[in-house]
Amino acid sequence: MKASQTFVKTFKDISKDEAARSAQFLLRAGYIHKEMAGVYTYLPLGLKVIENIKNIIREELNAIGCQEISMTALQNPEPWQKSGRWDNQDVDIWFKTELSVGGEIGLAPTHEEPLTNMMKKYISSYKDLPVYVYQFQTKFRNELRAKSGILRGREFLMKDLYSFSADDETHMQFYHQVENAYHKIFERVNIGESTYQTFASGGIFSKYSHEFQTVLPIGEDTIYYNQDKSVVLNEEVLNDEVLDELGVKKAELKSTKAAEVANIFTLKYKYSEPLDLNFINQDGEREYVTMGCYGIGVSRLMGVIAEKFADDKGLIWPESIAPFSYYLIAIGNEADKIANDIHDKHPNLFYFDDSKNRPGEKFADADLVGLPYRAVISDKTLAGNKIEITNRLTGKTDLLTIDEFVAKL
Amino acid sequence: MKASQTFVKTFKDISKDEAARSAQFLLRAGYIHKEMAGVYTYLPLGLKVIENIKNIIREELNAIGCQEISMTALQNPEPWQKSGRWDNQDVDIWFKTELSVGGEIGLAPTHEEPLTNMMKKYISSYKDLPVYVYQFQTKFRNELRAKSGILRGREFLMKDLYSFSADDETHMQFYHQVENAYHKIFERVNIGESTYQTFASGGIFSKYSHEFQTVLPIGEDTIYYNQDKSVVLNEEVLNDEVLDELGVKKAELKSTKAAEVANIFTLKYKYSEPLDLNFINQDGEREYVTMGCYGIGVSRLMGVIAEKFADDKGLIWPESIAPFSYYLIAIGNEADKIANDIHDKHPNLFYFDDSKNRPGEKFADADLVGLPYRAVISDKTLAGNKIEITNRLTGKTDLLTIDEFVAKL
Repeated sequence: MKASQTFVKTFKDISKDEAARSAQFLLRAGYIHKEMAGVYTYLPLGLKVIENIKNIIREELNAIGCQEISMTALQNPEPWQKSGRWDNQDVDIWFKTELSVGGEIGLAPTHEEPLTNMMKKYISSYKDLPVYVYQFQTKFRNELRAKSGILRGREFLMKDLYSFSADDETHMQFYHQVENAYHKIFERVNIGESTYQTFASGGIFSKYSHEFQTVLPIGEDTIYYNQDKSVVLNEEVLNDEVLDELGVKKAELKSTKAAEVANIFTLKYKYSEPLDLNFINQDGEREYVTMGCYGIGVSRLMGVIAEKFADDKGLIWPESIAPFSYYLIAIGNEADKIANDIHDKHPNLFYFDDSKNRPGEKFADADLVGLPYRAVISDKTLAGNKIEITNRLTGKTDLLTIDEFVAKL
Repeated sequence: MKASQTFVKTFKDISKDEAARSAQFLLRAGYIHKEMAGVYTYLPLGLKVIENIKNIIREELNAIGCQEISMTALQNPEPWQKSGRWDNQDVDIWFKTELSVGGEIGLAPTHEEPLTNMMKKYISSYKDLPVYVYQFQTKFRNELRAKSGILRGREFLMKDLYSFSADDETHMQFYHQVENAYHKIFERVNIGESTYQTFASGGIFSKYSHEFQTVLPIGEDTIYYNQDKSVVLNEEVLNDEVLDELGVKKAELKSTKAAEVANIFTLKYKYSEPLDLNFINQDGEREYVTMGCYGIGVSRLMGVIAEKFADDKGLIWPESIAPFSYYLIAIGNEADKIANDIHDKHPNLFYFDDSKNRPGEKFADADLVGLPYRAVISDKTLAGNKIEITNRLTGKTDLLTIDEFVAKL
C-alpha cells in the first residue's frame, strides 16, 4: 500500500486521555480511532493486524478440529434466566435494550447460554459428541471503567471456543489440546516467552481454571511464580491450601504485573444442567453434556503486543501480525522510481511512504508505525545499487543489493 | 469437510414460523440458526457463504481504491444529535441502551454520522480528497416486523461504503465506478440478469438515489420497468413528473415484485454540513465535503440468492459463493475408500457425506444443502472406474473417469 492511497495520517500530538503508551501510539499512528471510552474503530492498518491475529488463531483451532460459526449480539433473555445470569444483580456488565414490539433483550457479554441452548438441536446422543465450536465475535460489557485503550473495552473482539464432550476424560484431552494450541498461538505472535499459563479460580465443577497471562507492567493482574516458573498462579488462588497442593511455598514466589490474554475453563454441567443439554450415553442413560470454554481476547491481544514491544519512538510489530513487512522510504527521484517498482510488485509486503514529507518525518513515522523493517533507497545507497534494511526491533541495519533483496521477497 | 467433522445436521421438518421458502431451507440444511425473530446465528456452512460473498465485494471495492475499516456498534449520541437522527421521533428503528457510568448510547443502524465525525480528523485540505472507506458491519434495526428469515433482520450484516469528494464531478465519477462495481458483484453471484438498477427517491441534495433490485416474488418492493428494461423505477417515484423526465409513459410500464439488495445515494452536504466536515479548496476557500453512501445488504443478499435459486427440493448455490463445490456420496466400501482419498486431497472443494444415512437420505440431503454438484461413487460407477457428477441447477449428469475428474480439480 502507498501512503497516498490511504486517508490515514500520523499525528505528533499525544492524546491526553489515554494512559497506556500503546493506546497513544495506536491512535497517533492511525491504527485505531476512539469513538468513546472503551469503544474503538479499527482503521485499515489496525484491521490488518486484527485479521492477521484472527488467522493465526483460526489455523491453530481448525487444526484441532474446531468449527467456526458466528453468533449474534442481540440476546433473548430466556436461556440467561435459566442459568441465573440475566439479572443485573448477578451480572453487572449487561447492556440491555428494548424491542419496539416489547420485551427486554441484551447485548451478549459472552455466549455460553445461547450456544448451549442451540446445541439442544444438534446433540442428543453420544454419537453427536464431541463438538468444538468457536467464533470471533464482538462482546459488549458495560464496564464502570474502560481503560488502557484496547486493553479493556466496552465493545471488543473475542475468540470464544466451547467444547461439548461426553465425559471428563474426552473433555480433559481436548482441554490439553487447547492448552497446546494456545501456547502455539502466543509463540506465533511473539509473546510465547512472556506468557504463562496460570492457575486461576475455578467454579462449582472445577477447582481451577487456567489463564494465560502476559507479563506487562501496565497489566491489571498480579501473578506469582516460582523460580523456574513451573508454577504460576493468580492472586485470587494465593492461599495456603492451593500452595500446599501445588507444592510451593509463599516465600519462594515472586510477583509481577501481567495482562490476561486468554483463559480456559472446565464448565462441566454449569450450563448444560440448567439449560438441560443432555444426551443418551452408550448405556442408554441420559446424561448432561460436559462443557468447557476457552477465550482469547483478540483486540486485547493486539493491545498487549503493542504495549509489550513499543519503545519510546513508537510501535514494533512482530512480523507474523504486522500489517506490512516493510516501511519503504525513497529519497531522490531515481530512488522513488525504484521504490515504486518494488512496491507495485509486492503491494502486500510494503507500505510505501510516498508522501511529500521530509525524510526526517518519514523516518519518525516509520518508527511510530512500527513495521518490522524499514527499507530505504537513496542516491547514496543507489551508488552501490543497494537498499538499506533496518530491523525495527534490534536496530540492526543491512545494506543489500537491490537484486538480492528483491530475489528473497 | 466431512459430515462426521461437523455438528450440523439436516432436518426434515419444516419450521412453521418462517414464511420464506429460503429461510426454511437455510434452517433445515443447517446454514443458520434462529436466535429470535430477525436475529440469526451463522453456522459453519452459512458462515462460508457469507465470507465468500464478502470476498467478492471486497475484491471489487478494493479494485476501485476503497479502504476497509471496521467501526463500532456502540454509538455516542452527539454526532447523531447534530444530524437530527438521534431522536426516536425522527428515526424509529434505534436500539438504545445506557452506560453504567450514565448516559444513553445507541446501537448503530448505519454509520454516516460516526464516520463523518471521524473524518474531521483526517480531512482538512483538497489534498486529502477523495477518500473511499467501507466496512462489513453488523447493523441493528429495531424493526416492528422482522420477516422472511435473513431478508429483513433486526441484526444483520451490511457492507457500507462512504465517499468523500471535493466536488460534484469527482463524486459522480466515483458514483459511476460503484455502479459498475455493483453490477460486477451481482454478475459474480449469479443474479446479474435479474438485478436492475432503479430510480429511487433522493433527498435534499439529489433528486434520485439508485437501488439495485432483484426480481423476486417474495420481495417487499414493487418495481416498474419499460419493455427493454432501460428504465426501471421504484414505486415511490412513480409520478407524472418523473415519468416525463425519464421519457416513459405509465401505460408502457410493467411491474414486478423485487428485493432491494443494494443502494447508492448522493448525500452531498447532508452530513458534512451539520457535522461541519469541511476542507480548504484549491482557491483557499472553505467548503463542505461532498459525500455519497453505497450499501449492500450482505446477509440479505445471501437470503435473496437462496430464495431466487431454490427449487422444491432445497437450495441451489451459485458456484462463486457455495460453501463447497461438490456434495460427495460413496456407496459401498471400495467407493468409500476412493471418496475419502478424493476428499482428503481437496477438503475445501468437497463436502463428503460420510454419515451412516441410507443413500436415499444422502441424495435428499445433497438436494437440500444445494452445493453446485453432486458427486457419486458406487460399485456401479466403479465398474467403469467412473464418478457420476450431477449439476444441481440443471440436473444434467455426466459420468467421468475418476482420473479425468481428479485431474481437472
